[in-house]
Amino acid sequence: MALKVAAFAGGVGGAKLADGLAHILPPDDLTVVVNTADDFEHLGLSISPDLDTITYTLAGIANPETGWGRRDESWNFLQTLEELGGPAWFHLGDHDLALHVERTRRLAEGESLTKVTAELARRLGARHTILPMSDERVRTYVDTDQGEMPFQEYFVLHRCKPQVRGFRFEGSRAAQPAPGVIEAIASADVVIFCPSNPWVSLDPILSIAAIANAVTTRPVVGISPIVGGKALRGPAAKMFHELGIEPSALSVADHFREHLKAFIIDIEDREFENPIQGLGLEVLVTDTVMNSSEDRTHLAQETLTLAASLRTSERAA
Amino acid sequence: MALKVAAFAGGVGGAKLADGLAHILPPDDLTVVVNTADDFEHLGLSISPDLDTITYTLAGIANPETGWGRRDESWNFLQTLEELGGPAWFHLGDHDLALHVERTRRLAEGESLTKVTAELARRLGARHTILPMSDERVRTYVDTDQGEMPFQEYFVLHRCKPQVRGFRFEGSRAAQPAPGVIEAIASADVVIFCPSNPWVSLDPILSIAAIANAVTTRPVVGISPIVGGKALRGPAAKMFHELGIEPSALSVADHFREHLKAFIIDIEDREFENPIQGLGLEVLVTDTVMNSSEDRTHLAQETLTLAASLRTSERAA
Repeated sequence: MALKVAAFAGGVGGAKLADGLAHILPPDDLTVVVNTADDFEHLGLSISPDLDTITYTLAGIANPETGWGRRDESWNFLQTLEELGGPAWFHLGDHDLALHVERTRRLAEGESLTKVTAELARRLGARHTILPMSDERVRTYVDTDQGEMPFQEYFVLHRCKPQVRGFRFEGSRAAQPAPGVIEAIASADVVIFCPSNPWVSLDPILSIAAIANAVTTRPVVGISPIVGGKALRGPAAKMFHELGIEPSALSVADHFREHLKAFIIDIEDREFENPIQGLGLEVLVTDTVMNSSEDRTHLAQETLTLAASLRTSERAA
Repeated sequence: MALKVAAFAGGVGGAKLADGLAHILPPDDLTVVVNTADDFEHLGLSISPDLDTITYTLAGIANPETGWGRRDESWNFLQTLEELGGPAWFHLGDHDLALHVERTRRLAEGESLTKVTAELARRLGARHTILPMSDERVRTYVDTDQGEMPFQEYFVLHRCKPQVRGFRFEGSRAAQPAPGVIEAIASADVVIFCPSNPWVSLDPILSIAAIANAVTTRPVVGISPIVGGKALRGPAAKMFHELGIEPSALSVADHFREHLKAFIIDIEDREFENPIQGLGLEVLVTDTVMNSSEDRTHLAQETLTLAASLRTSERAA
């Protein structure tokens, strides 16, 4: 089975599946297209949380406890920043900080985010291709009962407490896909929607029209980030609920039904197998919770096997 | 003896004497006016090496081994920056970095260097007043056999190896003294030229005309940074030599003779006592090498005693 894969991912959940895929696929056969609408400027630094999580995970240096940041991190910078009365709400470890500083320096010198991401990922030891969705600025704004706010303010500063009313991806209409994104999709045997937040990880990627269009030409397999009505991490379930939608694997499948050919749900959610089939999708029911490295590889293998069967049935059709 | 003091200082040597003075004088009676012509931008950060050395020293957290930077520092940021291929030639510790990041952030928000310096010094525990010489940009350029270069490039990147031909303090004609500098000089019983590099620490301060003018109204006591023909640290002696001047306590006294009323030289340099008196200056010969905290306080006390005697003789005259 030699499948070429383009995987769309946001933060921790997406990174885990991407890691599983990277353990199976050779570097040339996996491109991870990463949400950059969470990117923000903080302390004069250009910070790309999702790119960093994917990079650290594929480089094997992610913090296994938190999912974000680096393992064996130290916090001396942040401690002193706090003593100085500086804004210490965004947690920047000493090692991690170097990535932001170096990225910011290179961007200021005129390098593209695509090039900087590739070079830094290579230096850190990631072997597969990691692409930002765009080199241009796209920013998620969350409309809440406390007004509209930039995503990181909602996510980190307010800890997702405000009630969500909607989302806006500023800049996405004008933004072009980063170099390589359309090529990766066009040459992929399957596009995988990793188990990332539909609203603020995958939707921003799909908000770039050229990417959404390219995806229509390929078979897409998605994996539910919601298991048993709860998000495995992060505010996805809370967002569905506040938007008036029952948070469930079915709701995620419905959200992406235009794009999906097949959807993977957890054994705990087997009740949704028939309803999702009713949306016209193939369904695979399996263990989707990734606690260990083996779990990641297992789910990646299941996803690839499902994708291969789609290709076979396409050929047969 | 209640003396009010304005002390002009650059880096490590100046910081040591300022520390001695701070151990004797109450906070209201000591203002340290600090060279900012060494300041530079690195990695997008506004770095003020001399302000930082004075601040860390007066806060009691300076690294006693190096004289610059902080004690109990860690280097995880710099190590990672180097792994990422970033410019790691300027040594930024993890704790130290927070000072630069927070200063840069506040300056970008429109706060003055004077205000930022005062607030950060207070947070770090320094009790005496630390003033930048100016809130405006003044930059030392070193003319060398390898061309003219910014001071930090000469100092850190080239390790002072190029042959010096002269100095230029870009921006000093237009620069105004920082708020408080002229007031501190005018209300001082004595201005002390700390044992800092004449060419690149004290001359830049005096290159601001309003400061040089204010100094002419006050008695000035200087301390030689050159002992036995050698600089206690840094390139001062090398600079004198390359400019065709014998590096000696006498040369330093001669360099500042317009400003000085009295000069303090080391016992090792007692041969220069008469020649310096010949320049019209009072001379004190004492131990000037500051290895310990006691040495700092001793030299500070000697300096203040000499200053008090100048005041008495002024009154008598």
